[in-house]
Amino acid sequence: MMSPESAGPITNYNYGLPSEWRKPLLRQSLDNKVYRVARKIKKVGQDDPRRIVHGLKVGLAITLASLLLFYIEPFNKLFHQGQNGIWAIMTIVLIFEFSVGATLGKGLNRMAATSLAAALGVGIHNIAFRSTRNNNAGQAVVIGFFVFTTGAICTFMRFIPALKPYDYGLMIFILTFSMVSVSSYGPEDFETVVRDRILSIIIGSVIAIVVCICICPVWNGEDLQNLIAKNIEKLGNFLEGFKGEYFHKGEYFPNSEDGQSLDNKPFLKGYKSVLTSKSSEETMANLARWEWQYRFGFKHPWKQYVKVGALTRECAYKIEALNSYFNFEFQAPYEFRSKIQGQCTQICSETGKALKELASAVKTMTKPTSVNIHIEKSKVASLKLKLLLDMILLEDYNLREITPPAAVALILIDVVPCIEKIANAVHELAYLSHFKTPDSIVSP
Amino acid sequence: MMSPESAGPITNYNYGLPSEWRKPLLRQSLDNKVYRVARKIKKVGQDDPRRIVHGLKVGLAITLASLLLFYIEPFNKLFHQGQNGIWAIMTIVLIFEFSVGATLGKGLNRMAATSLAAALGVGIHNIAFRSTRNNNAGQAVVIGFFVFTTGAICTFMRFIPALKPYDYGLMIFILTFSMVSVSSYGPEDFETVVRDRILSIIIGSVIAIVVCICICPVWNGEDLQNLIAKNIEKLGNFLEGFKGEYFHKGEYFPNSEDGQSLDNKPFLKGYKSVLTSKSSEETMANLARWEWQYRFGFKHPWKQYVKVGALTRECAYKIEALNSYFNFEFQAPYEFRSKIQGQCTQICSETGKALKELASAVKTMTKPTSVNIHIEKSKVASLKLKLLLDMILLEDYNLREITPPAAVALILIDVVPCIEKIANAVHELAYLSHFKTPDSIVSP
Repeated sequence: MMSPESAGPITNYNYGLPSEWRKPLLRQSLDNKVYRVARKIKKVGQDDPRRIVHGLKVGLAITLASLLLFYIEPFNKLFHQGQNGIWAIMTIVLIFEFSVGATLGKGLNRMAATSLAAALGVGIHNIAFRSTRNNNAGQAVVIGFFVFTTGAICTFMRFIPALKPYDYGLMIFILTFSMVSVSSYGPEDFETVVRDRILSIIIGSVIAIVVCICICPVWNGEDLQNLIAKNIEKLGNFLEGFKGEYFHKGEYFPNSEDGQSLDNKPFLKGYKSVLTSKSSEETMANLARWEWQYRFGFKHPWKQYVKVGALTRECAYKIEALNSYFNFEFQAPYEFRSKIQGQCTQICSETGKALKELASAVKTMTKPTSVNIHIEKSKVASLKLKLLLDMILLEDYNLREITPPAAVALILIDVVPCIEKIANAVHELAYLSHFKTPDSIVSP
Repeated sequence: MMSPESAGPITNYNYGLPSEWRKPLLRQSLDNKVYRVARKIKKVGQDDPRRIVHGLKVGLAITLASLLLFYIEPFNKLFHQGQNGIWAIMTIVLIFEFSVGATLGKGLNRMAATSLAAALGVGIHNIAFRSTRNNNAGQAVVIGFFVFTTGAICTFMRFIPALKPYDYGLMIFILTFSMVSVSSYGPEDFETVVRDRILSIIIGSVIAIVVCICICPVWNGEDLQNLIAKNIEKLGNFLEGFKGEYFHKGEYFPNSEDGQSLDNKPFLKGYKSVLTSKSSEETMANLARWEWQYRFGFKHPWKQYVKVGALTRECAYKIEALNSYFNFEFQAPYEFRSKIQGQCTQICSETGKALKELASAVKTMTKPTSVNIHIEKSKVASLKLKLLLDMILLEDYNLREITPPAAVALILIDVVPCIEKIANAVHELAYLSHFKTPDSIVSP
């Protein structure tokens, strides 16, 4: 009998095939893996082609800075020490972000914090050097004290919410201040080195900002606008789709959310992403504040976008509740549902239309015109539905069966003021950011 | 008549008070402002005292590196060029994060990426230098080509989801590679400088990681655990509070969420934060993966925490739907509500208890013991409630009035399987991460 050891390690076991047969199989599986990875990478680019452009932009900015500061006259003579140009490259890599807002925010923070911290660092250097001229230990204590205090205080300050936009600046402040104070114990031409590095960092920041803005810029403001508009649209899609799915059907509803019939309707799932979009909306709004010169002018009401987003999310929670009524094990007899169907369908379609118009208004920055009409119509339908619910006689029904459609009706009644709040917030946004009046009103 | 101009600028207008009276007022308002700002800053520290400790830790790490590399023998003789020590300080400021996971992740990324990129950069330098010995333009083209390609490809790679944990490493790779390739056109002792800088960066990383871990460490894993436990507990608090608020009351419910009586019950609002905690949970889980040596051992199932968190959020959406029934303008007569009150209260209190036990199980890493009993009890109550709903005769009721409590009952029935899913996920977590068996079982 063959012992397990004598059979050799399992990795050498050749499945009874000659080795020249195995190689292609192995290669094939490797090819498959490479192919799958390649497809995934391709998908990253396809999902948002701006990512590829961003890569090329960063490459371009670094190359530009390299050639400029090291190879091209007279820029390569700009600095007293040849190696200071690398600070420009470092700056570009650290501050070049996907969007203009983030790049501008980091760039301005970096330039301001570096200059300020370097000036202070040179001051501390002079104090330490003069007060303890030939005393090495004394210098170490003085500089150690300042570095520790600045590091500790500035790091703590990064937690203060009001200073969040200057977070990067605070970090750079600690970095530069410590580096300058400490390196003070070095060469004679200290102040020249510091000045050259600041100059280099400013050149790097300017190159990054210019490339970021001039070549296919990605505006955070625009992305935020599109996100808010898309989220509102998704709710509209749900409401318009819901009426068809819930009321026009027979007795059958799938028991599980994974059921075939609901999976084939993406508009019923789209709103799910609205539920969790809070943090990305807030990040975008914070970054958009750096984009002054974007088409909105200096003081664009980014907070109002966040408010519209929050109201949209409030409404999405109600829609999540509506969605849960697809999954109830018992459903009311069609005869009962058909009683409330008319007004419910009316609410769904009017609120759906209102939301879609609001979405297109936010997206195109045009004043919404017929939203109020749709909302008034949905209010009327909601009033009628209330009266209808009061009038239905309940003798013949089972409470458990009729509760889901009745609850759907109540939620729909509850959705109407929600939509009205969104509409009001969008109207306020239209006023604050001077949305244009649509052409259709002007044209005959 | 006095012209507006002759009255002087508005800022000089003294409100009819002599100037010595005004000064204290101004100072008082300034004092008030300073006081308010100081109070806000104090609150940042009070909310999480670990922030103050973090500030001190960063200060300590920078001071340590400064003193070590610039003032203390024999470390200050470590480098051939005196200024390379500043790279250690820069590294500390850039990688020292609040939590151990983030610091470790950044530190390891930084060390690996710097070493790799520097080696490649030196290689490129040699190629460029040898192939185009005295041709400046040729060198510029070769180096420009490599810098551009590396910058573009690595920047694009940062968008690939699978590479997210190495995002910082990719950035540092671009940075170091560009800096090394470009600065190759510089001093003779090129390779020594590169080696010294890598050494300096490694020293900086090690100091940051050691200080971060050894002094009051903040473990992401622990924070994630606490967050998940707290979220589960919040849902439990809501359910236990809900039964008292919804069923034990008379006819009156406040119409608005801002109403006085609901604002005084924080447990009814606590769950709101669960709705939007997705991104922080995922970030924490990603960072926690770097904390191998934390008390959980090498392969802790962080993904399972995210799963529990997601199920908790699913349940929170249902609770948001329950919460909306506080705000309905019509409420069922107490007589109707009292019919379903018993079983609804039972479900609320059993699921509440189950959730609270699950929360404490996650928090203390102890196997939950009586959760299944509570869930079984709530299932029985849910069955009884279904039968009850089937039996209630509806002749005397108005549909609009009875729908809210009936819908509440249906949602509560729907909450039970939700809680069961959470319990199963926590049981799986307990198995995967070897939760300890509670003492109460062992003790008599």
